[in-house]
Order: sequence, then C-alpha cells, then structure tokens
Amino acid sequence: MKATIINIGDEILIGQIVNTNASWMAHKLNRHGLAVDQILAISDSKEAIFKALDKSIPDSTVILITGGLGPTNDDITKQALAEYFDMELAFHQASFDNIKQLFAQYDRVVDDNYEHQATMPVGARILINKTGTASGMWFEQKGKHIIAMPGVPREVRYLMKYEILPKLILELDTPTILHRTISLIGKGETHLSELLEDFEKGLPSNIKLAYLPDPVVGTIRLRLTALGNDAIVLETQLEHHVRKLIPLLGTMVFGEGKDSLESVIGKLLKDKNYTLGTAESCTGGMIAQKITSVAGASAYFESSVVSYSNESKVNLLAVQPTTLVNHGSVSEACVREMAKGAQQLLGVNCAIAVSGVAGPTGGSPEKPVGTVWIAIAVEDQIYTQKVQLGKERMQNIEQTSTIALNLLRRFLIGDL
Amino acid sequence: MKATIINIGDEILIGQIVNTNASWMAHKLNRHGLAVDQILAISDSKEAIFKALDKSIPDSTVILITGGLGPTNDDITKQALAEYFDMELAFHQASFDNIKQLFAQYDRVVDDNYEHQATMPVGARILINKTGTASGMWFEQKGKHIIAMPGVPREVRYLMKYEILPKLILELDTPTILHRTISLIGKGETHLSELLEDFEKGLPSNIKLAYLPDPVVGTIRLRLTALGNDAIVLETQLEHHVRKLIPLLGTMVFGEGKDSLESVIGKLLKDKNYTLGTAESCTGGMIAQKITSVAGASAYFESSVVSYSNESKVNLLAVQPTTLVNHGSVSEACVREMAKGAQQLLGVNCAIAVSGVAGPTGGSPEKPVGTVWIAIAVEDQIYTQKVQLGKERMQNIEQTSTIALNLLRRFLIGDL
Repeated sequence: MKATIINIGDEILIGQIVNTNASWMAHKLNRHGLAVDQILAISDSKEAIFKALDKSIPDSTVILITGGLGPTNDDITKQALAEYFDMELAFHQASFDNIKQLFAQYDRVVDDNYEHQATMPVGARILINKTGTASGMWFEQKGKHIIAMPGVPREVRYLMKYEILPKLILELDTPTILHRTISLIGKGETHLSELLEDFEKGLPSNIKLAYLPDPVVGTIRLRLTALGNDAIVLETQLEHHVRKLIPLLGTMVFGEGKDSLESVIGKLLKDKNYTLGTAESCTGGMIAQKITSVAGASAYFESSVVSYSNESKVNLLAVQPTTLVNHGSVSEACVREMAKGAQQLLGVNCAIAVSGVAGPTGGSPEKPVGTVWIAIAVEDQIYTQKVQLGKERMQNIEQTSTIALNLLRRFLIGDL
Repeated sequence: MKATIINIGDEILIGQIVNTNASWMAHKLNRHGLAVDQILAISDSKEAIFKALDKSIPDSTVILITGGLGPTNDDITKQALAEYFDMELAFHQASFDNIKQLFAQYDRVVDDNYEHQATMPVGARILINKTGTASGMWFEQKGKHIIAMPGVPREVRYLMKYEILPKLILELDTPTILHRTISLIGKGETHLSELLEDFEKGLPSNIKLAYLPDPVVGTIRLRLTALGNDAIVLETQLEHHVRKLIPLLGTMVFGEGKDSLESVIGKLLKDKNYTLGTAESCTGGMIAQKITSVAGASAYFESSVVSYSNESKVNLLAVQPTTLVNHGSVSEACVREMAKGAQQLLGVNCAIAVSGVAGPTGGSPEKPVGTVWIAIAVEDQIYTQKVQLGKERMQNIEQTSTIALNLLRRFLIGDL
C-alpha cells in the first residue's frame, strides 16, 4: 500500500519556502502504516497537476495533495481536480457555513468572494476545515483515494488529524510500521557500518537499519524500522534487536528517540544533584545556549561566562596573566584555570571551559585554525582534551560545543 | 529550460528530516536562470531511481540528484546510475586522492573500505568533493544533464557552488538574472506588501519583487530579480529601483546582501569605538553567540554573563535582592540593573540585558509565557522595552535575541 504526497506551489519550486508539510505528512502516514513512495513538488498549473496525477495514480493507493486552494487567482487546484475527475463545481452550503462561522469569530462579514470559495466538486467527499476557509476534497476512483487540502501547515495538520487519517486507516487495511532510533556520538558512518556489519546481516528481512548522521552537530542516529501486521509482535522484535545493538556501541550511545546530548546531560546532572556553569571563549555562549534550550534547565544550570577577551579571562575567571603570557589563551593551562575559575565565580559543582581558534583568522603554525582546548571540571576533578578541527568558523563552534558536551556526559557516566 | 531535483533517501519519505536541500538548490537554480519544474523525493531503491529518471528525463534539461552516495549498504545511487547509463564502475585515482587528503587533515589513515568509495562510473564526469568522501557524477545523454551528489547539505552546497552551477551556466547559455536583496526587520509580510503596493506596480516587467521572511529569526529579505541579456544594463536598472525602495522602508532596513543584524551591529560598534557585553537570562547565551559568530567580533565584543538563576543575577550582576522580591526577575527594574551591572562587571560601554519567560512552564497570569523585558545600555543612557511573544520556547529565545539586537542597532543609529 503506497502513498504519494503532491505539494503544489511555485513558492516551493523557487526555493522560497522549505517544504515542511511534506515531512510532517510523511511522518504521520508512516506511523499509521502507509509507506510514502514519493513526494512530488509541482507548480500551480493545470498541466503540472494533470501530469502529476497521471504519473502517480498507477503506483499509489493514496495520493495526498496540498496547496492551491486559496481565494486568489493563482489558486487553481480545485478547478483542476474537478476537471480531472470530470465533476461540476456547485455551491456547498456546509463549506459556506464554515466560512461564516470562522468570520464571525473575528467579527468580520463574509463577502461575495467567499461564495466562490464555497463551491465544491459535486461527487467528491467534502472535508470541512475548521481552521481555514478552504474545505478539503476526497476523490475515489477505482480503489484509489485522491485527497486535496490547503497548503497552510496549520490547516494541513488539522485536516490530516481529524478528517483524513482516521478514515484512511479504517478504509485501508494498512500494515504496521514501527521505528526505534538510537543516538550516538564518537564514530563516523563508515566505521559504524563496519562495526555493525554482522548485526545488520543478522537482522530479519522485515527489519531495516539506517544511518542518519547530523553533520552540523556531529552526532549520528541509527534507525531500526520494522514492518509487519501486529504492533505488539513488532515492538517485541524491535526491542530484542535494540538490546543487541546497544552493547555493540557501548558508551557512544547517549540516548534514544528524541534525546539530545543536552537533555541527557540534564538528566545526569539532576540525578547527581550537580549544578553546571560554563566558561566559553571560542564558542561564544553556544554551550550555555544548548543547555538552556532544554525546558527545565534551571534545575541544574546556574550561569555562564563568555570570556572572549584575554582581559575578561583574567578579570572574571581569575586566569593568571602569566598563564596567558607563557602558554597563550588557547592552551591546557588556560582552560584548566578557566574551568576552576568558573566553578568558583559561578558557584557550581561542574564547569565546562573551552578556548580555541575558530577562524578564519587568528591561527599560527603551532596553533592553526581549528585548534581547541576543552576542560571539564566536576567537583575537584578536572579533565582536559585538545581537539583539532577544520577551517570553517561556524562548524568549529558547533563541533566544539558538541565535543565539550559529550566529554561532560562521559565524565558524568564514569567513562573518562 | 527546465530542471528537476530528485532527492533520494528513505529519511525524507518517512518524514525524519525536512528536505532543506531541495529548497536551497531550487533557490540557486532559479537565481541562475534555471526554472525548477518539479522536486521529487524517492526511496533508496534501484527501482525508484530508474522510475524517477524515466519519468523526468523527457521533461527536463537538467536533473540534479542528491543522496545515497555514502559508504554504507543503504547507499545505492552510484550503482543504480551506473547501471541506468550502462557504465562500468572502476577505481578513480583523483577521488581516492581526495579521500586521502581529507583524512590526512584529521591524522587518519584511509582503509580499504574507501577504495570502494572511490570507484566511479567510467564515462561520467567526476566532480571532486573537497568537503566529503563521495565524489559527484555528471552524466550527459542526448543533450540532457543528469548530475548526482551526496545528500549532506554542506557537500551539496560545495558541489553546487564550485563544480555544478558555474559549468551548467556556461554549457546551457541561460539568460542573465541579477538579484539585489535588502534585509529589514519590524513589519510583517502583509503590512509590507501594502506599503510597497505602488512601488511594485511601478516595476518594469523584467523586474520582480519577492518577500523572503525568516520566521525563525524574525527578519524579512526583499529580493529584486532582474531578467535580461545584458548584465550592465540590469545592474543599472536594479540600482535605480533599490534606491527608490530603501527610503520607503526607512530604518527598518538594516542591510543589503549578506549583512546580518550582528554583522551590521559589529560595524556600528567598531565605527564608534564601543565595546559590547551581554547579560542574558532566558536567551541563555544566544545573543553572545550570534555576536561572536561574526569573524573579527573580538574587536568590539568583550564578554558576557548568562545569569540564569536569581542568585547569579545578584552575585554576578549586582541586581538588588529587593528588586527581585518586589518586581521579580522578569521586570523592567531587573533588566535595567542587569544591563548596568554588565557594563560594570564586563567593563564595556554597551550592554544588552534580557530576562523573560521562555516557556513552556514558568508563566503566571501577570507574566504569561512569552513575556520578555529587554534593556539596552549605551554609556550612561539606558532604554528598556517589554515584548509579548508566543508559547514556543525555542522561537521565544530566537525572537528575543533578534529583537534585542535590533534595539541595540536602532539605539546606535539614533532611532530610539
């Protein structure tokens, strides 16, 4: 049972908007056992719509269409679909009543323009859209379901959730698809695939393994997907293979599902009743920002210092001027003093300190662009590490943040 | 001259990632005079790739493919394309040398696995990818160009920019398209389009105006696109209309082209010989991070304090405990003291201070989620403003950072 998503709109084809409807819809369809076979973005033209339908109807049981149902001249989806399915457009009272109700909420009166908006193809199921003025349309032809809705993300979500998915699941006897994801850090895709070669070969044919690297952040997610008929059987099967997979990866694994490094660190800190602060030079506050992006971070995060200048390292964090003279600000001695200074100044048990050359300038033969020192202080213990990154400023800042957070995680679980 | 974009990857079809490559590529192709006719996302399977090529080659002059070129088993694009175009795969020395060079940067040795990664279809043009181990491939068949690259966004951008777009433009004799963009903040799309109605009507038919909002950051770019044959004529024409446009927008305009709020602020601070620091609560360091994302920020940025807890506001920034008791931490009095405290502690002329309820919890009837106070201190002057944002934590953090930076910009240009 295959589904096609067709997103209509020139704004997608000229790259003006990112097609977030497609990913949201695909995610929902998959969770309900409808595998999406293709996602197609096309222009607001009758020819493009006809061609897309001609090409996708033979391969798909379900075709979900978004866009082009608004009241302006470039919205031609309704006319095109009515013509394609050889239906007439006629005034549809329930759609008009819905528009009137929506307008009443904002004390506005419906004008004549909206009678046109309330004409609908006679013979299609009409899906009343409580979040907007354009109704959805559901066409059936030889066992195929072709469903159109407006392109506004909020309206897509409403119609999918209340009008489309529940009925689709009832009418189509879909298979069950379940996913589990494991997040890890510390090895690239190639090394992982070598490490997991035997595991992958040992998977039953209904379970697939996928590698999903996030190259900006520097983490990888592994996804196990199981296809079958019985959700409970699939869950047990997935659990079994997840339990086989995790020990192969050891402490590289930091979480499952939606866990992020910063959310996992939050839990570890809370469990140990630790408080955290950061002393950041080259990352400019990104580590603090990541930590506080987790709701509830105030339970363990106190404060941070972004000590970008040498003066601020001395004045705020009590780094010794002689350390800067003898070793420079990008040095083990400096981050060590920064971490201790942060513990002292911020009154925290744990501190992350980083100092590095983010680039594009500031490098030297001994300390080229991408040289970074990191210190992790937990109570009276301190761990330092040097990393050598690349030449791109933003990537160096992102990767330093990730590596530093991971070092803190490893410290907290006793892996350093 | 039509182009098709094909994005290969199950992660797109199950909705695990948003297809940002497609919008980036579509945007670039359009800017270079190649209209994108359709964007197609398909699965990592030979059948899907063959079918997509069969369906799109007749309609398109250029087909750009991303994804499925990695070293793992689910990456099958190279094999599929070689088979489709009836080419053999053979070891490709330049691709292998590139992998070795990439690895040398990280002091890693290339293992045998990468010999497989360096096999390439004999007869295709090979595009060396200095940002990753998978080379791109360019097939030509009866005047059609079919070009494949890896799916990692950074690698897509590198290959498009340096290996694909310059050659496509040369070989396809596309029309000349020039763009100018103006960045602004302070009004939504609807209000802007009303304000610019007459300007837009007065544009010649070869110049188009587009609105490019960045809803995450809260800024809008206006793009004027001119189409023609002579670059010098188009440039003069564009300059004329840009000079008409800017006065209509006044101080909402903060820059042109690649200017960001933070880069513009950097220039203003340097011109006035000012130094800057921040005192951040709800933004958790994002303002400092944005400012230091600009290369050379050390010329004007000194340091910051992320004072997340009330204790740190008192201990580091000398906020009066009575202020917190009487007004709370999200108050005008508190951000005022934070800004002054930051000037003092960090030894800077200018300070930005923010404190707010980012959510999802922590709101109250008087100060619901989304309530934020901002203070801008420049020498002995201080400006404060309250803003009421929405319910989503990350959006509140992003928008607070943008609004605070814009207030500093307006203060520095005498607009407050």
